Parts: sequence; structure tokens; C-alpha cells
Amino acid sequence: MKARVIAEYLGAVLKGDGDINVVEIASLDRCGPGKLVFVEKYGVELENTAGACIIVPLNFESVETDQSAAFISVREPKYAFAAAAKLLTTPDEKEGIDDTARLEIGADVRAKFVGSYVSVGEGSTIAEDCMIHDGVKIGENVRISRGTVIHPNCTIYDRVTIGTDCVIHAGAVIGADGFGYVRSESGEYIQFPHVGTVVIGDRVEIGANTCVDRGALGETSIGDGTKIDNLVQVGHNVKIGRNVVIAAQTGISGSTVIEDNCIIGGQVGMGDHAVVKSGAIIGSQAGILPGKIVREGIWWGTPVQPLAEFKRQNAHLKGIARLKDEVKELKKKVQ
Amino acid sequence: MKARVIAEYLGAVLKGDGDINVVEIASLDRCGPGKLVFVEKYGVELENTAGACIIVPLNFESVETDQSAAFISVREPKYAFAAAAKLLTTPDEKEGIDDTARLEIGADVRAKFVGSYVSVGEGSTIAEDCMIHDGVKIGENVRISRGTVIHPNCTIYDRVTIGTDCVIHAGAVIGADGFGYVRSESGEYIQFPHVGTVVIGDRVEIGANTCVDRGALGETSIGDGTKIDNLVQVGHNVKIGRNVVIAAQTGISGSTVIEDNCIIGGQVGMGDHAVVKSGAIIGSQAGILPGKIVREGIWWGTPVQPLAEFKRQNAHLKGIARLKDEVKELKKKVQ
Amino acid sequence: MKARVIAEYLGAVLKGDGDINVVEIASLDRCGPGKLVFVEKYGVELENTAGACIIVPLNFESVETDQSAAFISVREPKYAFAAAAKLLTTPDEKEGIDDTARLEIGADVRAKFVGSYVSVGEGSTIAEDCMIHDGVKIGENVRISRGTVIHPNCTIYDRVTIGTDCVIHAGAVIGADGFGYVRSESGEYIQFPHVGTVVIGDRVEIGANTCVDRGALGETSIGDGTKIDNLVQVGHNVKIGRNVVIAAQTGISGSTVIEDNCIIGGQVGMGDHAVVKSGAIIGSQAGILPGKIVREGIWWGTPVQPLAEFKRQNAHLKGIARLKDEVKELKKKVQ
Repeated sequence: MKARVIAEYLGAVLKGDGDINVVEIASLDRCGPGKLVFVEKYGVELENTAGACIIVPLNFESVETDQSAAFISVREPKYAFAAAAKLLTTPDEKEGIDDTARLEIGADVRAKFVGSYVSVGEGSTIAEDCMIHDGVKIGENVRISRGTVIHPNCTIYDRVTIGTDCVIHAGAVIGADGFGYVRSESGEYIQFPHVGTVVIGDRVEIGANTCVDRGALGETSIGDGTKIDNLVQVGHNVKIGRNVVIAAQTGISGSTVIEDNCIIGGQVGMGDHAVVKSGAIIGSQAGILPGKIVREGIWWGTPVQPLAEFKRQNAHLKGIARLKDEVKELKKKVQ
Repeated sequence: MKARVIAEYLGAVLKGDGDINVVEIASLDRCGPGKLVFVEKYGVELENTAGACIIVPLNFESVETDQSAAFISVREPKYAFAAAAKLLTTPDEKEGIDDTARLEIGADVRAKFVGSYVSVGEGSTIAEDCMIHDGVKIGENVRISRGTVIHPNCTIYDRVTIGTDCVIHAGAVIGADGFGYVRSESGEYIQFPHVGTVVIGDRVEIGANTCVDRGALGETSIGDGTKIDNLVQVGHNVKIGRNVVIAAQTGISGSTVIEDNCIIGGQVGMGDHAVVKSGAIIGSQAGILPGKIVREGIWWGTPVQPLAEFKRQNAHLKGIARLKDEVKELKKKVQ
Repeated sequence: MKARVIAEYLGAVLKGDGDINVVEIASLDRCGPGKLVFVEKYGVELENTAGACIIVPLNFESVETDQSAAFISVREPKYAFAAAAKLLTTPDEKEGIDDTARLEIGADVRAKFVGSYVSVGEGSTIAEDCMIHDGVKIGENVRISRGTVIHPNCTIYDRVTIGTDCVIHAGAVIGADGFGYVRSESGEYIQFPHVGTVVIGDRVEIGANTCVDRGALGETSIGDGTKIDNLVQVGHNVKIGRNVVIAAQTGISGSTVIEDNCIIGGQVGMGDHAVVKSGAIIGSQAGILPGKIVREGIWWGTPVQPLAEFKRQNAHLKGIARLKDEVKELKKKVQ
């Protein structure tokens, strides 16, 4: 693909050699002929630029002097690179429904691809353009909308709904019973019924081996555009809004609400019935107590506190040794 | 099902309209005709009660005045609701052994249901009423007792024993080798042998993608009635007692003992060879050092301390800023 | 196997009855006829030694007096026991390629064993002596070298490379896309391309349900001899050196480097672009901030600090209550 086509696709200005043939994306340290790379910061010294197509920030230095490469100037190089990469990466061309796919009576499967050893239960619907990879197990009355990709060995329990253009990575489990028990007087736990479900919006991505439990009586829901990393636990009846990002190994207890546009670090723990308000940013390993309301802003530590407060507290902590010395000295003086 | 039948099943008093037909369970905010709901607290104002069956605490206010609904009065409404829910939820009616189930010679499989693409190794026994869902892989010489349900894509390694009426959620791995190595003088790690096994009692529930490692030379064991959430790690030779509850993402290192009736929060970390005594309650994200003995009571923080002590310490922490100011002032005065 | 053969294999001195027949390994508390056991510490009182083969440290007490057993004296009894155990544990004798294994055109599979419902994509190579267990899904252009064992229901994505004699436990996911997104001005996240791969060295062990993400543009790599426990998250472009040990539920964010011979505890969290230098030991539940460089030594806490410093700080913390009292008293005196 000619460099000038990429520039056009991005609606950006090209300088240098627009006829360069671009064959693959690469990181900047592997720059070379036919590579599409990007530069995020000013002042970077470029090497091996001959024959490459380089996405740079506006008014980048070498653009005017280096004629051996194609330079595409944009406001957000990383974003433009990610967008242009789609032109250069070949889509998954698998198609057809494998002979071994076990589609139960009443399943309506129009997916582009269903791999080997997949099963789809009664009454489930899988729309056009979906890719259901090998070994995926889909229960009864599941709805999966157009263009969604489910990687190998995932399990989707009965009655789960998944929107369009989602990606679910290998081993993820959607719709298992939540962890809710009632203790009898004899000390035995009996399960609280889990007849609810999971509703996942559009363009949601769910990481490998992540678990999203079904609601007990209502729904567990994940909003459009939300991205969840690997090994995350989403408890029953949790409500996650739109465009939320949740890093690996975070755990969200039952009925907690995470509003739109939040960013949640890795290994965060959230107690049940907490509310994380729109736009909040929670640092990794933070702990949110049950029922806590966390407002917009940056939060840190266990239990979470505003980052500024956390830092102040930490500074105080570091100061204890000196404080001790001061008190010791004072004591002497007073005596 | 008539409301009066539910009341009889619960051995409880019914007031109002016992002829109401109950068709499904629901949360209180979705109360309406044909719904079975429950109220936990006094003083709740009920809505849309007409035609519903409502489980309430003893002497609940509206019982005497509202004749449009059926009220069932019990001491523990949530428990009664969970018990009654079984009358209204249809059990999984799947049965038969799928043609694609691969049962090795010498496997004795009497399960009610074995799904597609399951494999069961030589010498394994699966008793009556078990439900083995699609894609479950069961090794050799495994014993699974009556009524146990194993959800899709679980792996049960060789020689594991699982009791009656257990539920194992999708993707769980029971009996992988523990994480035990011995380092040679050359710096290479060689594996310590893992010839032990896992023994799981009756009515145990194990969450999605949870891992229970086999014992090295002895057994990893989980007692009757214990409930383990998703993504939990149970290390080799761990002994967990009866009626223990362990929330998501908790990790238990090798040879640690958790006695009966403990409640363990989420994301707790336990070092090896620790002992958590019967009745202890461990707060989420707590850390227990190797070899530590944790007595009955409520524990918090890393390393764990009694909750009261943890709170006192935290209060002290918050007081450092003021302490600093006081010392500053004293200094001035003294000078 | 005669005790004297084991002694010869270990190149160690045998005292007592070298003709004892050893049939299985056991823990010391299950010592008895035909058992191979080991003793790590001096002063342990042995029981039921008659007919057993006992690996002991040099100059162990009972060796001279007890003629009913075979004693093998070595410098490192646990290591010798682990080495000798291999003589007594029967290797997995499964072999052949199951009829249901779905090998795509162009896959070159010479494995000793391929189980049921496995799939191997186009262009993938699986070398001699490999054991690929039931339900494993292997993508396209994967390379797996000789002697590697992959347990049930693992997913290996396209283009991953795995070295010789590795062990990958059930449910592990190797090569899923990393968690990298770029946010557009409209607030939507689009995926940063993940065209990189994962390269795993020789003798690496990866625990059950652990996830190793592929590099975005480059590689995620794991060096020879490294051992990773269950439920660990290895992010995109992470570089892990040789003979590193990582305990369960630890999470390593993108582009972080862990050099050779490090020991990482459980539930550790590492921010992105951190560097853990060769020989560092990181305590469980520690937190490493993004970009942090952690030198050789023992580290603890969040954010990590040298263990000695951590302890000092903790001691200070415990001293605050007393400090408060002292200040109070001083105030009185001054007044």
C-alpha cells in the first residue's frame, strides 16, 4: 500500500516520498524499508528511515530535511498509527461452520466462522460476521450480535447477551453463578438463586480467563466500548458503564457500580455495593470498601483516598523517624 | 404454584390471598403479579404487591392491611426465599451421554448427562445424577460422587476425588501440579515430585477459573459445604475445613490450613504453612505471613492484625499531621 | 528398585540394607516398607523406618544405629529426593494421535501424544516427544519444540514459539492480545495493534489458567528454566529472564523487564516499564510502580522498598501511640 493512500485515509498531510510501498507495521526501533512506524515525541533521532512511512506529530523536525521516507504529520501519532494499522494487518480469513460444531435444534447461527468442537445450545442466536473459535461452549438462549469474536475455549452460560463487534479472549467465562449464599441456622450455606443474566454492550473487549458472573435476580451489565483485561472478576449484579477501562486481576464485588469513562488499574479490589462515579481513576492495588462512593478524580491506596491525600500521608509517614528525634531532644531540653 | 403451597413448604404462616399463582422469583423492585419476592427489613414501603407472594420478616407492617397479595412471615426471609426458589426454578433437564463423549475403557460413567467433547480417562468413576457439561476433561482414576455438576471446559487431573452434590464452574482446574521446585547448585530449578492428589468433600462449590493444585506427596483437601469463588488459587497440600467461604481472587500458599467456618474475603494472600483457626474472618486484600497462626476473630490488613488494632493504628496514622504541629509549637515554646 | 541403585544414581554413600526394594515416594510421616522418603533437618526422630529407603543429610544421627532401613547420605536431601523420584514415578505412557485431533493442512505434528478434540492450525510445528492433551487449541504457525507437555484446554494463539521440555498447565492462555488501547477525541478506545508474539524458552513451566499476552509490535519473552505459577498475568512485551520464579496471581504490566534469577512472590503487582534487576527477591503482595528500577536484594510492600527499610518503617508506625503520649506529657510539663 502506497504511503500516500495511508495519508489520505488519515486525512493528513504527507511530505517526502508518497510512492513508498508500505507492507507492515513495526516499532520505531525496527524502522526500515516498507515499514509503517510512528514517533510520539519531538526530538527523537530517527534511524533507518529510508523507504519507511513515518507518522509524526505536527511540525516534527526531520520532516523537511529527510526525502528518503514518507512523513505523515498528525496531531495524535499513536492514534493515527493504530487506525492505519488496520489497513495493513490481514483480517482473519477463516470462514464456514466446522463439521464438528454442535448446533442444537433451534440455534440460529449465521456466524462467518464456527470452529471445531464448538457447541451452541437451543434457542441461541449468533449473528452475521461473528467468529466463534475452536472449543467455545455457548449455552441456551444466548444472543450474540454481529461481528463479535470469541476466542477458543470460552464458556458462555445460558441467556447471556453480547453486543456487536465485541472481542472475548480465550478461556473467559461469562454468566457463571455469582457468589451468593445464605447461611442456615445449622451453619450450612445454601445458594441464593441466580436466575439473572449478563448483558454486554457493543465494542466491549474481555480478556483471557476473565470471569463475569450472572446477576442473582437482575442483570450484570457492561456498557458499550468498555475494555476489560485478563483475569478480572466481575461479580453478580455489577453495573459497568461505557468506555471504562479495567486492568488485569481487578476484582469487583456484587452490585457495585462503575460509571462511564472510569479508568481502573490492575489488582484493584472493590467491595460490594460501592459506586465509582463517572471519570474516576483508581490506582493499581487500591482497595474500595463496601458501599463506598468514589467521586471523580485520582484515587490511591487501601482504603482508597484522593492521590494528593495519599501522598501527604506517605510523606508524614516518612517523617515519623525525624519527629521521634525531635521529641527526644525536646524532652532533654525540658528536663 | 399456589402461594399456600410455598408457605407449607416453608412451614410458615400465610396471610392474604393464598390462591395466588406464583410463577417466578424476582427482586423486590420487580414485584408484580405472579412474582415471589422477599423483604429483609422492616419499614420498607412495598409497591405493585397485587398478585405477588411476598416473604416478610415476622410482624411485618403491611401484612395486616394489604389483601391483594400473599404474605409469608418467617424469621429469616432471605433464607426462606432461597429455599423456596428451588420450587420455582426449573432444574437442568439435559440428560444422556453425548455421542462425542470420549469414555476410555474402564471408565464407569453413570452420570445423568455427559455433554459434547467431554473426555473421561481410564478407571474413572462418575456416579448417578452427575451433570458433566461440554468440553470437560477428566483424567484417569478420578472419582466423582452422585449429583455433582461440572460446568464446561473444566479440567480434572488424574486421581482427584470429588464428593456428592458439588458444583464446579466453567474453566476450573482441579489437580494440576503444585508450585514446588528445588534449586540445584547450578541455579536450575527441578520440580519437586507431585504424586499427591486433591480430595473435595460434599456440597462444595468451586468458582469459574479457580485452580486447586494437587498435593506434592499428600493431599490437598476441601471440606464439606465449603464455597470457593472465582479465580481463587489453592496451593498444594492446603487443608480447608467445612463450611468455609472464600471470595474471589484469594490465594492460599502451600500447606496452609484453614479450619471450619472461616470467612475469607477477596484478594487475600496467605503465605505457606499458615493456620487460620476455626471461625476466623479475614478482610479483603489482607496478607497473612508464612507460618502465621490466625485465631478466631476479625482480621484486617497486611500483615493481618485484629480489626480493632488495625483501626487504632489507622487513627494514629491520621493523627501524625497534628502531632507534627504540636511538636513544632512545643519547640517554639521551649526555645 | 533396589535402594543401592538409587544411591548409585545419586552418586551417594548408602548405609544399612541396600537390598531394600523401593516402590514409591512418600512424605516422612508416611514412612514404611518400600517407601523412599527424605529428612531435611538433623535431630528428627524417625519412625517406621524398617524396610524404607531414607535420604538424609550428611552425618545424620540414626544412620549408624538403624540397620532395618537403607540410608543415603547427601548434601541436599530434598534435591536428591526430587531427582530420585523420577526413577520411581511412571511416566505418562499415552501415545498416538487421537482420531478427533484436528490437524490443519500444513501442520507438522510429530508429537508422541495428541489427545481428543485438540486442534492445530495451518503451518504449526509440534516436535517429537511432545504431549498435547485433550482439548488444547493451537493456532497457526505455532512452533513447539521437543518434549513439551501441554495440559488440557490450553489455548496457544497464532505464531507463538515454545521451547523444549516445557510444561504448560490446564487452561493457560498464551498469546492473547495485550491490553493496549488509544483513546480517540470522542472518548472511544480503539485497540493498539497486536501483531507481535510470545517466545518461551526451554524448561519453562507455566501454571494453570495463567495468561501470557503477545507483544504489541515486538515480543513477550520468557527465558529458559523460568517457572510461573497459576493465575499469573504476563502483559504484552514483558521480558522475563532465565531461572526466574513467579508465584501465583502476580501481575506484570506491559514492557516490564524481570532479569535472570529473580524470585517474585504471589499477588505482586508490577506497573509497566519497570525493571527488576537480576537476583532481586520481591515479597508477596508487593507493588512496583511504573518505570521503577528494583535492584538486587529483598523488597517488600507497596510501593516496594528494601525489606530492612520496610521493617524500620513498620516499627516507627507501631511507635506512634507512644510518641503521642510523650508529646502530651511534654506539653503538660512545658505549660
